[in-house]
Amino acid sequence: MGLLSPKKFAIIGASNKKGKVGHVIFKNLKHMAYPVNPNHKTILGEKSYKSVVELRGKVSHAVICVPAKIVPQIIRECGQAEVKYAIVISAGFSESGNEKLNNELKKAIKESGVKVLGPNVLGIIKPGHYNASFYSNKLKSGSISFISQSGALGVGILDKLISEETGLRYFISVGNCIDITISDVLEELINDEKTKAVIIYIESLKKGKKFLEICKMAKKPIIVLKGGATKEGAKAAKTHTSSLAGDDRIYSSAFKQAGVKRVYDISTLINSALLLEKGFKGKALIITNAGGPGILMTDALASRGIELAELPKRVIKKLDQILPKSWSKNNPIDIIGDADAKRYGAVLNAIEKEKFYDYVIVILTPQAMTQPYLTAQKIMKFKRPVIPCFIGGDSIKKAVNYMKKKLIVFNDIASLAEALRK
Amino acid sequence: MGLLSPKKFAIIGASNKKGKVGHVIFKNLKHMAYPVNPNHKTILGEKSYKSVVELRGKVSHAVICVPAKIVPQIIRECGQAEVKYAIVISAGFSESGNEKLNNELKKAIKESGVKVLGPNVLGIIKPGHYNASFYSNKLKSGSISFISQSGALGVGILDKLISEETGLRYFISVGNCIDITISDVLEELINDEKTKAVIIYIESLKKGKKFLEICKMAKKPIIVLKGGATKEGAKAAKTHTSSLAGDDRIYSSAFKQAGVKRVYDISTLINSALLLEKGFKGKALIITNAGGPGILMTDALASRGIELAELPKRVIKKLDQILPKSWSKNNPIDIIGDADAKRYGAVLNAIEKEKFYDYVIVILTPQAMTQPYLTAQKIMKFKRPVIPCFIGGDSIKKAVNYMKKKLIVFNDIASLAEALRK
Repeated sequence: MGLLSPKKFAIIGASNKKGKVGHVIFKNLKHMAYPVNPNHKTILGEKSYKSVVELRGKVSHAVICVPAKIVPQIIRECGQAEVKYAIVISAGFSESGNEKLNNELKKAIKESGVKVLGPNVLGIIKPGHYNASFYSNKLKSGSISFISQSGALGVGILDKLISEETGLRYFISVGNCIDITISDVLEELINDEKTKAVIIYIESLKKGKKFLEICKMAKKPIIVLKGGATKEGAKAAKTHTSSLAGDDRIYSSAFKQAGVKRVYDISTLINSALLLEKGFKGKALIITNAGGPGILMTDALASRGIELAELPKRVIKKLDQILPKSWSKNNPIDIIGDADAKRYGAVLNAIEKEKFYDYVIVILTPQAMTQPYLTAQKIMKFKRPVIPCFIGGDSIKKAVNYMKKKLIVFNDIASLAEALRK
Repeated sequence: MGLLSPKKFAIIGASNKKGKVGHVIFKNLKHMAYPVNPNHKTILGEKSYKSVVELRGKVSHAVICVPAKIVPQIIRECGQAEVKYAIVISAGFSESGNEKLNNELKKAIKESGVKVLGPNVLGIIKPGHYNASFYSNKLKSGSISFISQSGALGVGILDKLISEETGLRYFISVGNCIDITISDVLEELINDEKTKAVIIYIESLKKGKKFLEICKMAKKPIIVLKGGATKEGAKAAKTHTSSLAGDDRIYSSAFKQAGVKRVYDISTLINSALLLEKGFKGKALIITNAGGPGILMTDALASRGIELAELPKRVIKKLDQILPKSWSKNNPIDIIGDADAKRYGAVLNAIEKEKFYDYVIVILTPQAMTQPYLTAQKIMKFKRPVIPCFIGGDSIKKAVNYMKKKLIVFNDIASLAEALRK
């Protein structure tokens, strides 16, 4: 049993008052939690316990959302109640300059034997199973797990994922990492079979060596977004987490050695995970109805170390039969501006069983003869890995929304290439 | 009188048949054009002329959309009709491997004295004034002009601009550049007072020296997206335009010398122009309700050579009065996760008349106490240059759409920083 496999929770600081964090969390987690609050008799219709100690043997995890100054005392009570893991939502420790309280909390952790996530966290979410956080929007279940050292950035990303209908396996906000570190959480995730890729937002890394060892062992993609890459950013990070971000070059080379992909913005963090999870690697084949975007995509991929498949002569001959004379005879396969959905479909059919490439990027720009929605239908039927890149506005929206049900769709060249970057 | 200041057009190849290019163009341009087609008596209710020669003295420009093989003959007729400029929409010349026809066209151009844009173009659009193209969606008028060597990419970008409610001063599709080059068009644009910035998609540059000279003279931002930056991309470009893309490093250093900003993707091309046009330059000040995105933004700006403003002590003291104790006391101004719209407004008020920065980036991530729409109202009232960067999903949509009426809004850190890059 670990941090991510709770039996039952105690919500210490649960509340009847709407808008209170303790109210939101208990509402999110009611089906597997007991409320603890000496000032309430019942909370949302459930009996409220005076102290977590009354729940000894009944709960494996506690979520703590009480004023910072009583958190050390609550941790000791958790110890008495044989709670294994406490998730401390409360803020007001070293991140607010309160080192004294921070030290008290450290002492309580050591003496109680309780393992503590946080303080200053959003919580843990396992979509479709439990939501031990004060984030209320509904996430879909997926196969990527996400560790975030910033609660706020976490919320921004979760909101984005929801609006893009992308699921998560786990979301874990780690906060100040007073006890449980990013490495500890990552270790659980690389042992979780259903986590196919891990994305991490890091501000500063404790136990860096352990982190890199785990990354090296991991048989799944790990993608890291780390603040403080410039001296200006490092200065800002110091103000924020009161911990030195360290020399960024050391991080960069360590990430490289450990096979971790480092990215520099939020969209790429999400898109990289999505593409890696779905197994986009190897040689790319580009199909396009416009020469320019084909060239730009070629540049964007090649400059990021992605190999482009070479068309075998046999395939060129096959395509000569179905394409206009002036087609490119090359990768990118430029099927010419007047391509309708049928022509896109014919090319996809012709190459479907070929082995000379690993995945296809289909570029579409809306021209006079273009049929975005019908072309999308052809792409959805294609049985090999495919990434659509439709460049345009309203005329492609319906097609894009339709493909998003199954595929990762891009509307820009650079963002696609950056997400594929090795 | 130049290419971009037509008096009247002849549409040679105008048609009554819906779906035909000659129909679409005449419909788009009817208010300032005569239709020419010997096979029709009237087109859309207007008298159709048998030959452009009948229109001698009446038209300054011709748009030609007849089969490629008769284009040279039509150009000679344009010469007889004293047409100054012909826009050749027709394709099927060197881009399709038809060098013979291409040479015939060259000869006709030389002998007729007509200046020719194209062949193989989408046309010219001056939103709010005239649309000499077969692109039918309605563009708003703006202050950026856009030259595109690829019609298809042009369409993709125009569609994007429309869906983002962004206007253009001119759109010019230059196609194969058999006669009028990118440099010629650029020269007209830098002399056009209402063009505040020029964006250009280039595949290969003829008269490169002239191009760079014009760029050096220009007193407005010029931003270039050029395909063929890698050897793979250059190979693809060769297939596409049958012209060598040239050693890319030569282009890069030449662009740099000439003060041209080179970008690598479509979004950045558009966003750079928008930001430059609105005068975003100098020192940036960041306001954020989340430390992490503040750090990432600092990294993203600093790594692209953008200077961050330093907070004067006086300003720190002022902000101490209105912000919680734990605020960052630094740029980025981290106003802490529980910031409501009032707090954002108070900071914007406090700095509105300060001179230590040139523009403000306001970051918002939707947290428990965040008020995206009310915060957007505060931002819209701010009288200095400001770029909102709202990171999230559905909860920020209303605020983002509202701000888009006046501001350039981003939802990601890297794309904003890349658009500002010097």
